[in-house]
Amino acid sequence: MENILKKAAWLNEAMPYMQKYHNKTVVVKYGGSAMLNEELKSSVMRDITLLSAIGINVVLVHGGGPEINSMLARLGKEAVFIDGLRYTDAETAEVVAMVLAGKVNKGLVALIHSNKGRAIGLCGVDAGMITAERIERETDLGFVGIVSEVDPACISMAIDRGYIPVVATIGADKSGQVYNINADTAAAAIAGAMQAEKFITMTDVAGVLADQSDESSLISEIKTEDVPELIARGVIAGGMIPKVESCVTAINEGLKEAAIIDGRIEHSILIELFSDRGNGTLLRKYHQLK
Amino acid sequence: MENILKKAAWLNEAMPYMQKYHNKTVVVKYGGSAMLNEELKSSVMRDITLLSAIGINVVLVHGGGPEINSMLARLGKEAVFIDGLRYTDAETAEVVAMVLAGKVNKGLVALIHSNKGRAIGLCGVDAGMITAERIERETDLGFVGIVSEVDPACISMAIDRGYIPVVATIGADKSGQVYNINADTAAAAIAGAMQAEKFITMTDVAGVLADQSDESSLISEIKTEDVPELIARGVIAGGMIPKVESCVTAINEGLKEAAIIDGRIEHSILIELFSDRGNGTLLRKYHQLK
Amino acid sequence: MENILKKAAWLNEAMPYMQKYHNKTVVVKYGGSAMLNEELKSSVMRDITLLSAIGINVVLVHGGGPEINSMLARLGKEAVFIDGLRYTDAETAEVVAMVLAGKVNKGLVALIHSNKGRAIGLCGVDAGMITAERIERETDLGFVGIVSEVDPACISMAIDRGYIPVVATIGADKSGQVYNINADTAAAAIAGAMQAEKFITMTDVAGVLADQSDESSLISEIKTEDVPELIARGVIAGGMIPKVESCVTAINEGLKEAAIIDGRIEHSILIELFSDRGNGTLLRKYHQLK
Amino acid sequence: MENILKKAAWLNEAMPYMQKYHNKTVVVKYGGSAMLNEELKSSVMRDITLLSAIGINVVLVHGGGPEINSMLARLGKEAVFIDGLRYTDAETAEVVAMVLAGKVNKGLVALIHSNKGRAIGLCGVDAGMITAERIERETDLGFVGIVSEVDPACISMAIDRGYIPVVATIGADKSGQVYNINADTAAAAIAGAMQAEKFITMTDVAGVLADQSDESSLISEIKTEDVPELIARGVIAGGMIPKVESCVTAINEGLKEAAIIDGRIEHSILIELFSDRGNGTLLRKYHQLK
Amino acid sequence: MENILKKAAWLNEAMPYMQKYHNKTVVVKYGGSAMLNEELKSSVMRDITLLSAIGINVVLVHGGGPEINSMLARLGKEAVFIDGLRYTDAETAEVVAMVLAGKVNKGLVALIHSNKGRAIGLCGVDAGMITAERIERETDLGFVGIVSEVDPACISMAIDRGYIPVVATIGADKSGQVYNINADTAAAAIAGAMQAEKFITMTDVAGVLADQSDESSLISEIKTEDVPELIARGVIAGGMIPKVESCVTAINEGLKEAAIIDGRIEHSILIELFSDRGNGTLLRKYHQLK
Amino acid sequence: MENILKKAAWLNEAMPYMQKYHNKTVVVKYGGSAMLNEELKSSVMRDITLLSAIGINVVLVHGGGPEINSMLARLGKEAVFIDGLRYTDAETAEVVAMVLAGKVNKGLVALIHSNKGRAIGLCGVDAGMITAERIERETDLGFVGIVSEVDPACISMAIDRGYIPVVATIGADKSGQVYNINADTAAAAIAGAMQAEKFITMTDVAGVLADQSDESSLISEIKTEDVPELIARGVIAGGMIPKVESCVTAINEGLKEAAIIDGRIEHSILIELFSDRGNGTLLRKYHQLK
Repeated sequence: MENILKKAAWLNEAMPYMQKYHNKTVVVKYGGSAMLNEELKSSVMRDITLLSAIGINVVLVHGGGPEINSMLARLGKEAVFIDGLRYTDAETAEVVAMVLAGKVNKGLVALIHSNKGRAIGLCGVDAGMITAERIERETDLGFVGIVSEVDPACISMAIDRGYIPVVATIGADKSGQVYNINADTAAAAIAGAMQAEKFITMTDVAGVLADQSDESSLISEIKTEDVPELIARGVIAGGMIPKVESCVTAINEGLKEAAIIDGRIEHSILIELFSDRGNGTLLRKYHQLK
Repeated sequence: MENILKKAAWLNEAMPYMQKYHNKTVVVKYGGSAMLNEELKSSVMRDITLLSAIGINVVLVHGGGPEINSMLARLGKEAVFIDGLRYTDAETAEVVAMVLAGKVNKGLVALIHSNKGRAIGLCGVDAGMITAERIERETDLGFVGIVSEVDPACISMAIDRGYIPVVATIGADKSGQVYNINADTAAAAIAGAMQAEKFITMTDVAGVLADQSDESSLISEIKTEDVPELIARGVIAGGMIPKVESCVTAINEGLKEAAIIDGRIEHSILIELFSDRGNGTLLRKYHQLK
Repeated sequence: MENILKKAAWLNEAMPYMQKYHNKTVVVKYGGSAMLNEELKSSVMRDITLLSAIGINVVLVHGGGPEINSMLARLGKEAVFIDGLRYTDAETAEVVAMVLAGKVNKGLVALIHSNKGRAIGLCGVDAGMITAERIERETDLGFVGIVSEVDPACISMAIDRGYIPVVATIGADKSGQVYNINADTAAAAIAGAMQAEKFITMTDVAGVLADQSDESSLISEIKTEDVPELIARGVIAGGMIPKVESCVTAINEGLKEAAIIDGRIEHSILIELFSDRGNGTLLRKYHQLK
Repeated sequence: MENILKKAAWLNEAMPYMQKYHNKTVVVKYGGSAMLNEELKSSVMRDITLLSAIGINVVLVHGGGPEINSMLARLGKEAVFIDGLRYTDAETAEVVAMVLAGKVNKGLVALIHSNKGRAIGLCGVDAGMITAERIERETDLGFVGIVSEVDPACISMAIDRGYIPVVATIGADKSGQVYNINADTAAAAIAGAMQAEKFITMTDVAGVLADQSDESSLISEIKTEDVPELIARGVIAGGMIPKVESCVTAINEGLKEAAIIDGRIEHSILIELFSDRGNGTLLRKYHQLK
Repeated sequence: MENILKKAAWLNEAMPYMQKYHNKTVVVKYGGSAMLNEELKSSVMRDITLLSAIGINVVLVHGGGPEINSMLARLGKEAVFIDGLRYTDAETAEVVAMVLAGKVNKGLVALIHSNKGRAIGLCGVDAGMITAERIERETDLGFVGIVSEVDPACISMAIDRGYIPVVATIGADKSGQVYNINADTAAAAIAGAMQAEKFITMTDVAGVLADQSDESSLISEIKTEDVPELIARGVIAGGMIPKVESCVTAINEGLKEAAIIDGRIEHSILIELFSDRGNGTLLRKYHQLK
Repeated sequence: MENILKKAAWLNEAMPYMQKYHNKTVVVKYGGSAMLNEELKSSVMRDITLLSAIGINVVLVHGGGPEINSMLARLGKEAVFIDGLRYTDAETAEVVAMVLAGKVNKGLVALIHSNKGRAIGLCGVDAGMITAERIERETDLGFVGIVSEVDPACISMAIDRGYIPVVATIGADKSGQVYNINADTAAAAIAGAMQAEKFITMTDVAGVLADQSDESSLISEIKTEDVPELIARGVIAGGMIPKVESCVTAINEGLKEAAIIDGRIEHSILIELFSDRGNGTLLRKYHQLK
């Protein structure tokens, strides 16, 4: 009994956050451990379903690197990376599309349905959602694209009807050629196009660390204006750079805040949304800081 | 941290119930200690606001006997009760209307707004919501009415626009004469007219007790078919009779379930809605029992 | 028969005015003799119902000073006025709210229903309609507020569904504390927020008089630009000042015209709306005068 | 001043009737003197505009025999009548269509607009509103049709947008051949298809008379069940038969009442709608009589 | 079989044009041989119906000079032309209205219905669509008007409900006086008011010819900026001047293109809309030319 | 020029069919050669886009056996068939889902977009569209499912917004387990659930043949009542049986007609929809036959 009272009390604590996000859109870039660990994966899908059940519109955007690598390996294709980007020949592009939009995406949809949520799996090709352009580089990367335009109409349509949109980040150019697109970048572009209330991206670290060898050195808030200097000083480095940059993109497109959260923790999305403490590193514009 | 995880876990536990009631209507008859004790009152208003924030449509129906008595006393009018029903002369009817619709009702609305909820205070006179008829008895009761018709259009209108309807149970007859109406009866009639998902009425006991001297003898579920016998046997007695009868009315009007809950417990509405255990006594039709 | 023809003829005379106001909103500040005299009161409520029946949206805003005084007297509280404003302690504020929102307001609603109109009684606390702020003065007035913001959404909602909104002018601050607010000021603010077609305020004199001892000296039209000089010269004086100022406020908020009418005359609202002659004093901006 | 009060008083008298017909549809078959006399014509169009201005949806259905005769005469075609029905050869059918839908109809529309009303002129050919069938008789009548089906969708569309529909009663068969159709019959069929609140047809007598030589012998109400006997007894005779039959048709299609009114009286429609006394003869079903 | 394949192939050819015009509005000024020749007339009505059947919204605007002349002759009225414009006395104005709105207009509507299309016949008087003003000239032309304002609301209403609007170009001034209005001018004004995708006007020549004696000298595209010079040089002359000017008007009102097409050719509207080659002369702004 | 006229003429020929299917839904089961041959595939996608461009709502339902086999072969998994049905172990089920929903489905979507159509790729898992149940047989087939329920809400949503829904026929049971489902069966169930105007299934033969060795023996129409006898007699045999049965299912669900068409012919869908001759074999109920 006492137990129940405690629970109810906490619901009350979370209320201001629920009011803040009610009928608002939150774009979550899902990936890393939270996607590889089956238990965490189930837990995240439950959390997403919960958010939908209380009237918060989550758009779940995902990549799927490990599953792609595993399928390429089974097909005898070697994954080639150039400057950290996957070299994508025509056959690889096809495998990427197939794994992301057919396996990972629909798998997440099914998982949400097993929690009695209602989801719809889309990819950037559907309804012309993501128009891609080939990345122009000295070293050709093949069919690796950047986002040239986002039309979020079909995502909004799904939300209007009460479905949770699950989005695989492939896109096509005008000719119909499909491209592999970085999921962080695509998610941020979608968040911007939808003028979401918040953009959240999941990582496998605690957030941006002042000292990368010390998880307790978490920087809990960064002004987007300070990002270039933090990169120059090496505080933001390696795989954290594209994460931070996707957040900066979302904020430059008009969002109030973006967060890099620790996907290794269970319920990390709920913690980020429903507590003052948050989780990981929050990015905002200077003048928006408290 | 551990604390946060526990909280998130419980949200997950509550999810199936949140899904069950999402975008559904729950009519709550509010009264008793939960209305007299200022702390409990604040707590209930927060809970109601919370339910609204997560997309559950609560209709809060209230009486206000003690406040009426206190105002009558200050005005030098003695409260006269005949068979447990207040004798209501013209002046008393006016005081009842004024206290319920002007003081109690708008006070609850203001309290909800202080929690950043959005409420609208209505009474049975508004939009012709409750048409009353004078009770015909041997001993005249004055302007004490019974509900002859409910038009819930203005309650639905409020819900459609996202307001929490707070309803004071006075009604008027065709000539415009205002009547004092029993709040339990009116609340049940409203629940029926709205085809609500659930009707909840708050009391100051644990629920229906097998042995009224022993709160641990709570009967947690009653088939409406068994009510007459339970009354005959004296298990349901005194003030519990109208409570149970209002639940039976609601179920006969088509509701799936109605609950008599213990308003002395904090968060009793949340407990009733969001846990399997529930709270107090649940009434259902025979064939609907598990 | 001749009689009927005369009547039909007049309906035709009134047609251009009916066309002018069809589906438009007219905010009426109701008060004075028209509220105290039971016959006039019934007559005004019939007129309001008539306007609704022919497709003109009236918002009826009322005060209720005499009823408040009478209730305070019965409760043994002495009414204290400072500079013509009621000193309002916490208990008085509660009585004001109760009498206005519970007695006067719902009484008017019931009266409209007895004419087969459909009305809904609201106060400034409902749906956060009127946000009030404490008046800052050297001599503290207690809980006397000024309007800091009007959100007319719930009034519009009522109109959209065909209800006549009847509004009691109390408001609450962000903390939920209820304030007594001047009804003329509140009515003008509501008219402005709704961008009404016209604002009408009822008085107990013929209108603005050039010579206050001579009712035949009525000034039938005043340019808002000339108001300051008329006050300086003492033509507009005493209780007429806040009346005129509420009209100026409404016009400054964008209304085309505002009228101070003689509430002692039966059907004064119909006369103002449906004849060229009008009634009392009309206020318009200079460049809008014929 | 006294004058104005009288006028306002009468508006109040008319209110219950205005409430009765607000947002309801009244189909008026317009014809006879009210159409030939220019002053009466202007007056009727003003009355129709007035009804629209106060939220009553009038559908004005008209014939135009005299104008047709005059045009046929000018074109050197002789009007031929067989059993009171115009023999209509192909050329005559064309003239009928042209005069009704082009001259009379659009003339009425223009007249309504000169009163600042908003009307739209339609004929039975538009949107397939009236499907006609050739009358099968021993003596061929040419292109004289009966109504085989009414699709009132385009009339409803006009009403929904606030236009007064003015309808010329020609119709076409499936092949596109245009037919001359009796206006009373067509108007009654339209009233039935729209489930109008009332059907009114204008004549040049006081109504159904017990003694046709005595206008004071007006029968003010007839039960439709009694019509056959009244025809058999010769009380309903001559041109009154199709009038009464159109009323019976409308009532059989589900209308509550139909009235034959005296179009020679100014404002006869207003008198019929807005006074208890009515005008002419009212037809209702037996069980609907008071 | 081979035949069917060819047909299907062509549908595919036409697809980009169908996509271009899907759910868009095209205003067609219909007249000349296409209106006089019964076979062409049937064919045009079929084409219009076809366009409607595939989701292209055609507004058919028509004149009817020859039919007017013929009716005036039959009525013994001589047609008088001043500078190519019909002198229109009151009686003539009436005949014009009657023939255009009653005979020609409803005849076209019936023809569309015989193709199972759904049309509605309107004229400029309906719903105040075309407000006309008397042309002021030294030599009085009687009731010949120019368009002073177009309110396309009733045309849009018809389109929204899936009807093909057929419009006769008469208009009325504020007093209700009906005017004869040039159909090209009116059609262009309607196209402008509706912000149509395209304006098409039908003539009895191949288009604008460089050498008027040589139909092979067709100028297939003209920049509106070059029109004054082409008129000065006599390339655009005679009856072609008002045609070209109506196109210029439409383009100045914001349309992307306007075309003068050869109405003597069967299916000329389809050819213009569904092939790259087009038909006749296309007018566009300089900077819009390929 | 003559060429253009011929084309326009044919459009006119097709009009009655276009009217018949305008704003109606046609479910096409796509497969066989039309899917394997790249040219035919492009051609079908163009045809589908064309139908959408002229306002006909096509739902494209596809399987993809050959692509699945090829992927299984590349992954070193042998395809096992039992009684013509693929034995589907867990891994195979995953490959089926991935290939159908990720590769084939999104490829078709991209192809439609390259024709400037707007499509959205869905599978039976999305929005719980297809609830599957394991087929119960003596010989276990693994994850081969039958359709137990179709919820077409997300297909309708796509159509409402103007998207062409492309549907891959996998489904999930309540636990989220994905099943391989026969595409003909699923397509027919979808057609039934949507109450489509027509169901079309593509094959690689001319239709149902009286003599299977003679393509000229095509039976162009079959009454569903006669199907059992035709199967018994061996006229309908082999792979044609499930095709015919899917048509019978669709008709039993309330469709007026279903057709088995020859997908080897270019534009076979257009031919079926837009000509009287049709294509292949049409199935209807007895009483619906001409």
